[in-house]
Amino acid sequence: MGTHQNVVEKMAQIPKPNGTMRALVFHGPNQISLERVPIPKPGVGEAVIRITLTTICGTDVHILKGEYKVRPGLVIGHEPVGVIHELGEGVTGYREGERVLVGAITPCGQCSDCLSGRWSQCGGPIGGWKFGNTIHGAQAEYLLVPHAQANLAKIPDELTDEQVILLADIASTGISAAESAELKIGDTAAVFAQGPIGLCATAGARLKGASLIIGVESDPARAAMAKRMGADVVLNFKECDVVAEIRRLTDGRGVDVAIEALGTQETFESALRSLKAGGTLSSLGVYSGKLSVPIEPFAAGLGDHKIVTTLCPGGKERMRRLMAMVLHKRLDLTPLLTHHFKLDQITEAYELFASRLQGVLKVAIRP
Amino acid sequence: MGTHQNVVEKMAQIPKPNGTMRALVFHGPNQISLERVPIPKPGVGEAVIRITLTTICGTDVHILKGEYKVRPGLVIGHEPVGVIHELGEGVTGYREGERVLVGAITPCGQCSDCLSGRWSQCGGPIGGWKFGNTIHGAQAEYLLVPHAQANLAKIPDELTDEQVILLADIASTGISAAESAELKIGDTAAVFAQGPIGLCATAGARLKGASLIIGVESDPARAAMAKRMGADVVLNFKECDVVAEIRRLTDGRGVDVAIEALGTQETFESALRSLKAGGTLSSLGVYSGKLSVPIEPFAAGLGDHKIVTTLCPGGKERMRRLMAMVLHKRLDLTPLLTHHFKLDQITEAYELFASRLQGVLKVAIRP
Amino acid sequence: MGTHQNVVEKMAQIPKPNGTMRALVFHGPNQISLERVPIPKPGVGEAVIRITLTTICGTDVHILKGEYKVRPGLVIGHEPVGVIHELGEGVTGYREGERVLVGAITPCGQCSDCLSGRWSQCGGPIGGWKFGNTIHGAQAEYLLVPHAQANLAKIPDELTDEQVILLADIASTGISAAESAELKIGDTAAVFAQGPIGLCATAGARLKGASLIIGVESDPARAAMAKRMGADVVLNFKECDVVAEIRRLTDGRGVDVAIEALGTQETFESALRSLKAGGTLSSLGVYSGKLSVPIEPFAAGLGDHKIVTTLCPGGKERMRRLMAMVLHKRLDLTPLLTHHFKLDQITEAYELFASRLQGVLKVAIRP
Amino acid sequence: MGTHQNVVEKMAQIPKPNGTMRALVFHGPNQISLERVPIPKPGVGEAVIRITLTTICGTDVHILKGEYKVRPGLVIGHEPVGVIHELGEGVTGYREGERVLVGAITPCGQCSDCLSGRWSQCGGPIGGWKFGNTIHGAQAEYLLVPHAQANLAKIPDELTDEQVILLADIASTGISAAESAELKIGDTAAVFAQGPIGLCATAGARLKGASLIIGVESDPARAAMAKRMGADVVLNFKECDVVAEIRRLTDGRGVDVAIEALGTQETFESALRSLKAGGTLSSLGVYSGKLSVPIEPFAAGLGDHKIVTTLCPGGKERMRRLMAMVLHKRLDLTPLLTHHFKLDQITEAYELFASRLQGVLKVAIRP
Repeated sequence: MGTHQNVVEKMAQIPKPNGTMRALVFHGPNQISLERVPIPKPGVGEAVIRITLTTICGTDVHILKGEYKVRPGLVIGHEPVGVIHELGEGVTGYREGERVLVGAITPCGQCSDCLSGRWSQCGGPIGGWKFGNTIHGAQAEYLLVPHAQANLAKIPDELTDEQVILLADIASTGISAAESAELKIGDTAAVFAQGPIGLCATAGARLKGASLIIGVESDPARAAMAKRMGADVVLNFKECDVVAEIRRLTDGRGVDVAIEALGTQETFESALRSLKAGGTLSSLGVYSGKLSVPIEPFAAGLGDHKIVTTLCPGGKERMRRLMAMVLHKRLDLTPLLTHHFKLDQITEAYELFASRLQGVLKVAIRP
Repeated sequence: MGTHQNVVEKMAQIPKPNGTMRALVFHGPNQISLERVPIPKPGVGEAVIRITLTTICGTDVHILKGEYKVRPGLVIGHEPVGVIHELGEGVTGYREGERVLVGAITPCGQCSDCLSGRWSQCGGPIGGWKFGNTIHGAQAEYLLVPHAQANLAKIPDELTDEQVILLADIASTGISAAESAELKIGDTAAVFAQGPIGLCATAGARLKGASLIIGVESDPARAAMAKRMGADVVLNFKECDVVAEIRRLTDGRGVDVAIEALGTQETFESALRSLKAGGTLSSLGVYSGKLSVPIEPFAAGLGDHKIVTTLCPGGKERMRRLMAMVLHKRLDLTPLLTHHFKLDQITEAYELFASRLQGVLKVAIRP
Repeated sequence: MGTHQNVVEKMAQIPKPNGTMRALVFHGPNQISLERVPIPKPGVGEAVIRITLTTICGTDVHILKGEYKVRPGLVIGHEPVGVIHELGEGVTGYREGERVLVGAITPCGQCSDCLSGRWSQCGGPIGGWKFGNTIHGAQAEYLLVPHAQANLAKIPDELTDEQVILLADIASTGISAAESAELKIGDTAAVFAQGPIGLCATAGARLKGASLIIGVESDPARAAMAKRMGADVVLNFKECDVVAEIRRLTDGRGVDVAIEALGTQETFESALRSLKAGGTLSSLGVYSGKLSVPIEPFAAGLGDHKIVTTLCPGGKERMRRLMAMVLHKRLDLTPLLTHHFKLDQITEAYELFASRLQGVLKVAIRP
Repeated sequence: MGTHQNVVEKMAQIPKPNGTMRALVFHGPNQISLERVPIPKPGVGEAVIRITLTTICGTDVHILKGEYKVRPGLVIGHEPVGVIHELGEGVTGYREGERVLVGAITPCGQCSDCLSGRWSQCGGPIGGWKFGNTIHGAQAEYLLVPHAQANLAKIPDELTDEQVILLADIASTGISAAESAELKIGDTAAVFAQGPIGLCATAGARLKGASLIIGVESDPARAAMAKRMGADVVLNFKECDVVAEIRRLTDGRGVDVAIEALGTQETFESALRSLKAGGTLSSLGVYSGKLSVPIEPFAAGLGDHKIVTTLCPGGKERMRRLMAMVLHKRLDLTPLLTHHFKLDQITEAYELFASRLQGVLKVAIRP
């Protein structure tokens, strides 16, 4: 992270010209810079929001490192809270000035995939993920929201930006692990890795009615947070044989649901080895390189195992529902917002976030 | 309740003859008596347990009043915690002296219905409910458990009898309301009536991830307990228009899931009127007389509504899973055990329980 | 039907003025007339199609009789096949001249209901049904399609208008009965009433893997068509005790799925009486007056029964999938198109259709 | 197969001693022999049936070759049709002489796994598969059936042994692919490999309502049979790029459900590459060695893909339901019984079956 010398860090001092905004632009691996770019104008069915809070995702770090490819010139980031700045033609039921949360995934609602309930795969594989991937993203002062009618979720007055910002991606993703696994009341669950997504997966397993929840994590701060989010036990994979310990804690059965929240061969494999026959491996990780399925814990294909993957559910209804969970005190993710930065300091924020030092979990960025 | 003069109340003082036990026998409407009857002997696949704790169910009161018909001479009650006294041939993996919980519903596991996953309807309609219905029940010192292999659930050492007794029926039934409704994280729920079953339904909606939970109840003690079990709001139907209030609390939408936990036309109808289109009415009540579906809130059959009914899920695996929920502190129903009696005092217990006085919710009966 | 004297039947001879079209306008109970009205212009997100084939639904007859209320002045009908005439702003991926099928239900895809998968209840109860209900309908030369992006389904070249017209409503509705019931391979099903919807429900039960399918119908022509659509047996309720016979045919079990396709107390009740415990009553009928649930076959609420209702699934993806079923020869509904009329003859068509004479099932109307 | 010199082939001529039967015994890799062994006696809850028809499974060939390990001395085979010879204590509702089908998988119905609906994983991983795996199997004159109450499925008089024998394993397994995938009406499906299991998977996809079904197979006889079982198209992987062709046939979308019915890396990978985002890979194959998941078609874990595996569903209810499908002419697998042998000729039958010559699909073995 220390090598992106192109970052223009003094931008805030420059007087703001008409119709431009500051935005974090990706120019190539390890090259991001906070720049002035035009404020977008909404087309038919679109909206522009003024960002009031955003954050950095692990995926953004992958993008920065060149591990996930996006086009140079793209504004990155996909977790926006803001205020409606301008509404395009055809968007109804909203007015300028309303506070809104927009999910990281912005489905159109009207293509074959959306009309099949595969909103995240809107228009094709991973097609729902547009912000900071195929269109300009949220680490900016303004953001154009496509398919605004389907994606602007009004924020209840009772909730602060900080209370809802993490719903845009990590909460929606994390909670979906237990949902996609169809975790039932009384199921046992193990959650591999307690980074931001894994912590939300832990919270999600709790919300969905798991009995015993076992976290797997070596970092003590994250282990402690895992307990706060609902884990009964946190196993340190550096200090014990996690699979054996999970078997022991489940009377030899294995867990009903194993959640993979990191994206490595090791965690995937351990998750599978921890499962009971008939259990479900719910995978949230982004894998690179190779992924192999060990044959023995897979019962050679005869174990009635399920492996399910989920891309962050989006759309305004998902956001509304998650905000209702916060509103009714079922979920509080503010402890995960460990650090706060101004947009001007976003490159510092990236450095800290990528370092995983100082107990950082998620960083709040205020334009 | 005061009229069953036949009750032999002094039985405890009589020296216990060989091979007999005290049991509450139903002789006809308003005629129950604590009598000496033979201790049962287990046949093939059966077990006999010595009861250490039991309780009285609303259904037992229906039986006593003659509203639900069972044969005279039957020992009633269907909520047993006990110790294995004798095992019949073919029952393996158990030994005498082990503490067990047995569900109110005792499926065989081996008929077409059970093998279709309809365990409660084992062998035909309501066939899973045997104790105190088609075979002798649990308000006795000993209990013959049919299909013991499928129904003896070992109690973890960490848990007391009091912590698990309510799982046999009311918790399994109550929690099933949200399960059968397939309540999703973020759904809103209303629970009509906060008696023992309704209170567990409230707990179940919470466990399954409801956002806003609205209880409906006029009794202040039950309303208070509803909040303890997870309700955010409790509406007193004597003081407000419940349906209108539920609409207001849900921004005019209506709830996703309405749970009926009483068994009357009024609650059924209010539940339906509270639902959003596409919502689910999950019914636990036992209805008598007539039940009619109001056409307008049913959208004349075009509202994508679902009405689902559930008979208490049973079997040892259900009990194991519910005990795991208690063990891991997801569920604590001991506050519902408001009163304690000895088996000798069971007719007093019936009187109190049926009266709904003194804040009674459930009574613990110790042989 | 003979009393609506206002119908202008000679319209076809009148030279077509610029920008007007013929359309069947509802003016009040038993008052419909084919009139000249302006050809609609599409707004943002809308399209106008030129109708090439439409039909009359039982619901239209209810509207005509005043049994289902719509506003006077409305063009009725909701089953359109046509050619894209004009596209509004923001509709992409289509061009004028393309042949399209549009479902009777036209969800927006972007409201909370649609984003929850409750497309038929778009924006609120029955909100997805717009054509001939809340906006002008399809018994006309041109039709404005709302939310066109979500609702224009291109017709494969291999298929004729006649092969797809019945997918818009009755096939989508009828097939949904088995889908909503989650009918499983090997389930038995009974379908009460073999009108157009019931015949499609029979076809749907077959498509979804039912083993024994029992139709209930007294009309011989409809009974014969039921067998063609997949019924193994058709029971004439005038000649036998249908419930007893269904029990006999299912070895006393009752059916797994009972489909109600008429909307009367009698058929609803018989459907419930035919069900096994744990079975599902899937209701398609439109009820009026009172609907009551008989307590005994409902097992007083303890039978694990489900009652599910479904409003015709719509949207372009549903239409695409149903057209794929026709294309691959899984479904052929052309035998149901028993009579053909020109738009000028639509009042005759209504009379015939409402009379149920001459073996009429569905009438094709060609503008 | 030619090397198992130990096979005693002249056994049929030896006079049958009291209480013994002929049975095919596995002694080690490539060592099977038809021997005289004692006729089993049923214990509590068990039954003994006299086999009237059995067959050989691909898994038996794996066992013979030593690729799947079982203990020497075991009678192999797991597909039995027979007549009840003797009933153990506690088995009710049956009488000697009744014709029964028993599934390859014989769940107890009473353990935690069975009571969770994981009947195939009865008592632990693959625990439901007992015949010819952990207890003596069906390639014999008599067979002890464990948990007889849950596993003896009476055969309707209208059906012959030949009509039902293939339901015991390959039909139940094959059809489960579409069931486990939750294939919906209108889904497209591809079935990789059209051996006996794949052919049944093709039939299952058809039964469950697939629109386009694409078989993948190079053997012309199997390809022809695939069409008979319901495939619309059969692709020869030796002559075309199967994945590209599947994409082309599905308008670039990929299939909703890809069924793997062979158990190789190649077919698994092609199945995944053929899937649309949000699609389900339903795996029936038995894998050995390594199995790897290609990252790109897996969308790096972000494609909402599901991978589900299924072990043959068993138990008497499954068998009853499949027999109902045959009875009502939804399914006819008799064309797959290409060759007939006597039990004396079983080693010849093994040789032919393993060779895949002479168009062999399944061999009927009559004791």
